[in-house]
Amino acid sequence: MEHIRQYIDEHKDRFLQELFGLIRIPSVSSVPEHKEDMLKAAEYWRKSLREAGCDRIEIFPTDGNPIVYGEKIIDPSLPTVLVYGHYDVMPVDPVELWKSNPFKPEVRDGKIFARGADDDKGQSFMHAKAFELMVRTKTLPCNVKFMIEGEEEIGSANIAPFCTNHKDLLKSDIILVSDTGMIALDTPSITVGLRGLAYMQVEVTGPNIDLHSGIFGGAVANPINALTKMIASLTDDNGRIAIPGFYEDVVEITREERDEMAKAPFDEAAYMKSLALEELYGEAGFTTKERTGIRPTLDVNGIWGGYTAEGTKTVLPSKAYAKISMRLVPNQDYVKIGKLFEAHFKTLAPKYVKVKVDALHGGQAYVSPMDTIGYKAASKAVETVLGKRPIPVRSGGSIPIITQFEEILGVKTILMGFGLESDAIHSPNENYPLENFYKGIETIPYFYKYFTEMYQGEL
Amino acid sequence: MEHIRQYIDEHKDRFLQELFGLIRIPSVSSVPEHKEDMLKAAEYWRKSLREAGCDRIEIFPTDGNPIVYGEKIIDPSLPTVLVYGHYDVMPVDPVELWKSNPFKPEVRDGKIFARGADDDKGQSFMHAKAFELMVRTKTLPCNVKFMIEGEEEIGSANIAPFCTNHKDLLKSDIILVSDTGMIALDTPSITVGLRGLAYMQVEVTGPNIDLHSGIFGGAVANPINALTKMIASLTDDNGRIAIPGFYEDVVEITREERDEMAKAPFDEAAYMKSLALEELYGEAGFTTKERTGIRPTLDVNGIWGGYTAEGTKTVLPSKAYAKISMRLVPNQDYVKIGKLFEAHFKTLAPKYVKVKVDALHGGQAYVSPMDTIGYKAASKAVETVLGKRPIPVRSGGSIPIITQFEEILGVKTILMGFGLESDAIHSPNENYPLENFYKGIETIPYFYKYFTEMYQGEL
Repeated sequence: MEHIRQYIDEHKDRFLQELFGLIRIPSVSSVPEHKEDMLKAAEYWRKSLREAGCDRIEIFPTDGNPIVYGEKIIDPSLPTVLVYGHYDVMPVDPVELWKSNPFKPEVRDGKIFARGADDDKGQSFMHAKAFELMVRTKTLPCNVKFMIEGEEEIGSANIAPFCTNHKDLLKSDIILVSDTGMIALDTPSITVGLRGLAYMQVEVTGPNIDLHSGIFGGAVANPINALTKMIASLTDDNGRIAIPGFYEDVVEITREERDEMAKAPFDEAAYMKSLALEELYGEAGFTTKERTGIRPTLDVNGIWGGYTAEGTKTVLPSKAYAKISMRLVPNQDYVKIGKLFEAHFKTLAPKYVKVKVDALHGGQAYVSPMDTIGYKAASKAVETVLGKRPIPVRSGGSIPIITQFEEILGVKTILMGFGLESDAIHSPNENYPLENFYKGIETIPYFYKYFTEMYQGEL
Repeated sequence: MEHIRQYIDEHKDRFLQELFGLIRIPSVSSVPEHKEDMLKAAEYWRKSLREAGCDRIEIFPTDGNPIVYGEKIIDPSLPTVLVYGHYDVMPVDPVELWKSNPFKPEVRDGKIFARGADDDKGQSFMHAKAFELMVRTKTLPCNVKFMIEGEEEIGSANIAPFCTNHKDLLKSDIILVSDTGMIALDTPSITVGLRGLAYMQVEVTGPNIDLHSGIFGGAVANPINALTKMIASLTDDNGRIAIPGFYEDVVEITREERDEMAKAPFDEAAYMKSLALEELYGEAGFTTKERTGIRPTLDVNGIWGGYTAEGTKTVLPSKAYAKISMRLVPNQDYVKIGKLFEAHFKTLAPKYVKVKVDALHGGQAYVSPMDTIGYKAASKAVETVLGKRPIPVRSGGSIPIITQFEEILGVKTILMGFGLESDAIHSPNENYPLENFYKGIETIPYFYKYFTEMYQGEL
């Protein structure tokens, strides 16, 4: 397999420049002003897949952003890998904290700095380039399909209907996704669990207009004061979520499994130091890795109301808002949790305010079994390139669509990600080490090779 | 005194157009971008005072916005009225709730709609026009001084030093201010009490950068969650402020005084209806008017942190902020209260967050005695024009500088205001009824007349 490194060495600068072209398109899916950019990013993927060697490519419009589909079928009797990724990215605010323009990728200290450098432009583009490599070196061992969407960061609302309507088109034996991370290149890991997500927005209204806080303060309830009390009561002193029924469907993990998980290397002191924290905080009775891996949580992702600019304004505002999301574990249903949240939040509201609760998006948790040829092929591919057998880990993040892929298409997903915790995805100065980008491109062809061999029962 | 109405009738359109010229200058003192507008507004006042008849006018620079001074001394043996007002206005956000441009005054339903229409451009400009009236009709009975500042809405930081440095210049027998309201034109009232103010800003820092709420959520404390718990605990279930020592200096008002206050007409049902509220909320054991008039309070004026734009972002933010102000009653010291707040807020902070507390501005409460010739002259002037003896009321608002005037200049202030609660000062669609504007201009010359007569012992 010497041809793999050789091809990468010869084309590595072009690979990077092509990725930069994709990154330069500010395809922020949550901001309506970027609508045109979503189409540009889809177009960029169409062109990339054509140049890489797909022999059928189509951009499917949806009610939201389009889905790019590409395929190369070399032999119907061979297995088919369906690659899933997304071309949309998170917003960039607070933009003033970026050291360089988030949409002008820059390499510093061996890392690409840009929004989407890792999540998921950098990671998904590795698949386009690995595919090109296999096509050009005539080593593609199986059929390949690509499905690249533009709404992953806002809940993937349109990909499930797309899958339902295109089951034949998407027929495959394994779904391969690089949208997660590993512990380190010298401590490789593969994500075998993802948390679910229920993302809510609440609006609390006091008086019908903004009031003068002197003239009305004390007599008219302040909706921000009310909102803080309501949110404060959502979690108790032990870091547990105080919504009735919230933990009802949580499956407790056995002591054995927890002991197994605890074997993954984790340097808590370094973790705290990297975040400049004096103390960690989470649900009592669980370790840091357990708190993100196997326990649900509730975070306020945003809060706003009243006067928030420089200086002072003595206002008693009419409204206050918060975006509150809950990460869920396997067996918790995000629709049910969203309803429990809404019902509970409304009961928290005193009569002197009005409350509106909206579910913005959600998805189910996922657990990937390790006894499948998909997992085994990924594990072996990573071990071949990085020299160590990867550790299976449960990640705290969510890719809500993964559960639905299995439900609709009946196919398992392998989360073979090359990101690092230090990549600052969703944050200012998102980055992706060049080495991870190239090691990812190097690993993917091995996955295709081992998966095809295992599928054919040769191993 | 028929000449008063006659002069107003002849010049009322010009009066309005001149006020509109002042309103059109967006002199928002809390926003640094409006620095030039502050100078323009001061210049506009200089021109207005010259045209009205001042024979000495000067714009005094300060470390902040300039103070406009004007005077007309007709006879040193006569009393001197010092008029105080401010040319700066509150910010206009949320600007989308305004029905017309806040800096393009419009008359609708007999009311001027604009930022500053009441507070304090409309009210202070009445004094310029009443002064013009007395000068032109040769009825000015005493000396007049004007002191118009540009930082009232941000704490009047520079007027106290100005007063200290210009005690002789500002020598006067009474300070007259129209920056408050009355119950209604047919239920006139004069403000005899103002609350003090301690306005704080807090910053809560969790991790040193924004994090992905999936990967870190549950293990790293969220500063918004922490901030909501801290703010929630600042008030108890009885609507009392839970800062140790907060009530220590509050003087309890006697039952008799409270009974007297309760005689002022107040339609609670109409009050609630006008604010679209189903219930009022405040400190247990006090009426609505008491809650704003004689009790201190704590309001969050603004809160922000994390992702606040449209859609979703799964961020665990690094920082969360709030602007929190406390209205204070006589005998509470805003500096002491600010320190109590800061000390308490810091003790509330768990070890997993860092807290910064800043005092943004403040001022002492004020009580105006009713047995002075200043109060008696104002009461008689209002009664002459509006036909009813005004009710003395305590307002919930603050004009922090009033207490300092007495401390530095040794002069009492009369708060003869013509605003209405429905004027929406500090809010979208601020307005000021034309009738109040003209009745104010009509009342002021009577105040001068009665004050001078009483001063000379003629009555």
